[in-house]
Amino acid sequence: MRVTLSVDAMGGDNAPDMVVEGIGIALNHLSEVNFLLFGDENILVPLVSKNPIIKDACVVKHTPEVISNHEKAGAALRSGRNSSMRLAINAVSNGEAAGIVSAGNTGALMAMAKFVLKTLPGIDRPAIASYFPTERGQSLMLDLGANVICSSDNLVQFAVMGEVFARNVLGLPQPSVGILNVGSEQLKGHESVQLAFYALQNIDLPIKFHGFIEGDDIGKGTVDVIVTDGFTGNIALKTAEGTAKMFSTFLKECLLSTFTSKIGASLAKPALSKFRQRLDPRRYNGAMFLGLNGICVKSHGGTDGLGFANAIDVAVELIRDGLNDVIKEDLAHLEDEPDNSIERHNE
Amino acid sequence: MRVTLSVDAMGGDNAPDMVVEGIGIALNHLSEVNFLLFGDENILVPLVSKNPIIKDACVVKHTPEVISNHEKAGAALRSGRNSSMRLAINAVSNGEAAGIVSAGNTGALMAMAKFVLKTLPGIDRPAIASYFPTERGQSLMLDLGANVICSSDNLVQFAVMGEVFARNVLGLPQPSVGILNVGSEQLKGHESVQLAFYALQNIDLPIKFHGFIEGDDIGKGTVDVIVTDGFTGNIALKTAEGTAKMFSTFLKECLLSTFTSKIGASLAKPALSKFRQRLDPRRYNGAMFLGLNGICVKSHGGTDGLGFANAIDVAVELIRDGLNDVIKEDLAHLEDEPDNSIERHNE
Repeated sequence: MRVTLSVDAMGGDNAPDMVVEGIGIALNHLSEVNFLLFGDENILVPLVSKNPIIKDACVVKHTPEVISNHEKAGAALRSGRNSSMRLAINAVSNGEAAGIVSAGNTGALMAMAKFVLKTLPGIDRPAIASYFPTERGQSLMLDLGANVICSSDNLVQFAVMGEVFARNVLGLPQPSVGILNVGSEQLKGHESVQLAFYALQNIDLPIKFHGFIEGDDIGKGTVDVIVTDGFTGNIALKTAEGTAKMFSTFLKECLLSTFTSKIGASLAKPALSKFRQRLDPRRYNGAMFLGLNGICVKSHGGTDGLGFANAIDVAVELIRDGLNDVIKEDLAHLEDEPDNSIERHNE
Repeated sequence: MRVTLSVDAMGGDNAPDMVVEGIGIALNHLSEVNFLLFGDENILVPLVSKNPIIKDACVVKHTPEVISNHEKAGAALRSGRNSSMRLAINAVSNGEAAGIVSAGNTGALMAMAKFVLKTLPGIDRPAIASYFPTERGQSLMLDLGANVICSSDNLVQFAVMGEVFARNVLGLPQPSVGILNVGSEQLKGHESVQLAFYALQNIDLPIKFHGFIEGDDIGKGTVDVIVTDGFTGNIALKTAEGTAKMFSTFLKECLLSTFTSKIGASLAKPALSKFRQRLDPRRYNGAMFLGLNGICVKSHGGTDGLGFANAIDVAVELIRDGLNDVIKEDLAHLEDEPDNSIERHNE
């Protein structure tokens, strides 16, 4: 299946170099993928032309305008109509591309994508989803910051989208779904999580609902899909990143502290680098905006070519797995049976 | 300064053995500390009598009743009037002890402590506070789970208590205070954090308010005091614990994966054990219930003697530093000047 991806070539700290480098890395293992590259042709054309494989796979679409990282979402939406980000999203809505990848301003990307692509039927708000490394492998967590406050309806919709995702993209036959909370007992937490618990326990979809999970269940890999509001999810994600970073710093300090430990560390070097690879944030780069009528993947702004290539892989995978079609089917099934609808359980 | 501590000897997974062992460890470095030990004398007296130093420092107060870990807070409050936990708290309120330590049911301990000891003037709700290891040393974080939903007033009160704590107990001349949020910009987050931001920016106390911090700032040690609601704080704490655990598991697996890496790891053993020590959760054991009219420290239920000894150290430190008196002074100062009161900034 040939796929055309639309790319905001100017978004990200080291764009467009990092973006073009990422396309080159992705093309080493991806076949039948083309790119529409939105950005300044004066910079992009020479960059792309350096490598004939990249050049063959890319069409440069000129625009000099860029959304800055500090621009607010509303302002970007109003004044960024000709920006590389906006034009890249438009390419999805007008059918030129099957999905879009950007390493630019997250808030602006979400606002524009929501405005241009609209949400899927049955979804009130899109969510940001990403993989989390766990002791068992990896889990999917959403929302990671699109919605600071979430109703129980939002949480239930996230659960449905996440479950469909884990089944179709991760290939899990019956993924388990848990809601992040301050305790695993049913009476714990605030109203939104309690109502969502009740709704998911009674939902008319074959969702394997685990119930509530706690923060330490994320690393354990207790469930395949972790559902939470964007405030908690964003803080949990960044707390985990910060803890991993602190852990690495401490480990390095200790291993370099004595002559013997340095020798030990050098003998264990291949093992330690395997360890680093396993938790390399670039491997988990590529946050998915789920619930939009189009595939939209956000790369970390500070990533490098390898990380951006991973975000491209994520987008291509979502497109080839037809993720949105399956989400639509499941949601339509829920809406067809009013007695078992999400709304009923949240009354 | 001679201190009498009241101890719920029956709370915790390995109580009372672990509790008495912890007292023994603490007595190795603490002087002038006595213990009132609440629990079953048939078990406690023989246990305490094994070590003359422990025996000399302890008075056993008999009660056969224990609050179980699964009991709900309300039920424990109603029916646990003769439990070891409740009688240990009563000892603080009637002046027999200067503070209480328990490794029992957190919800029951908070409910009973709040009911018996009451909150300090100016504090609506007590918060659970604990140390977090960071790249710079350690930070104090609150609330870690006492209040699932917090108003901006609650957050401001937590900030005041945390700042006083860091100045008096941690000995920092001008501790910095930050509110946990999904971004560092002033417009990020929901209403409670935004109103608390405004109030702390304008407060009539010499608080060094840093503003908003993100999840990864916890590990970095960006601020000395991290203020958040109990839902987010509990999840952030446990997410960090889970990440550290996962990190350790991965590291161990990698280091044991080849013959050479095993030799390397064995040469680096002293360094690796120093590393483990630095992040040993027992070193951070002892969560403080701040805002109560009495010192109350909660030990992790699953800890061992070393961890319980640390919780005892925390309680003794809070008592000797006269923490509650300083919090009261600061809050009284705020209340005296209605134009600069917390309430005004939250209107």
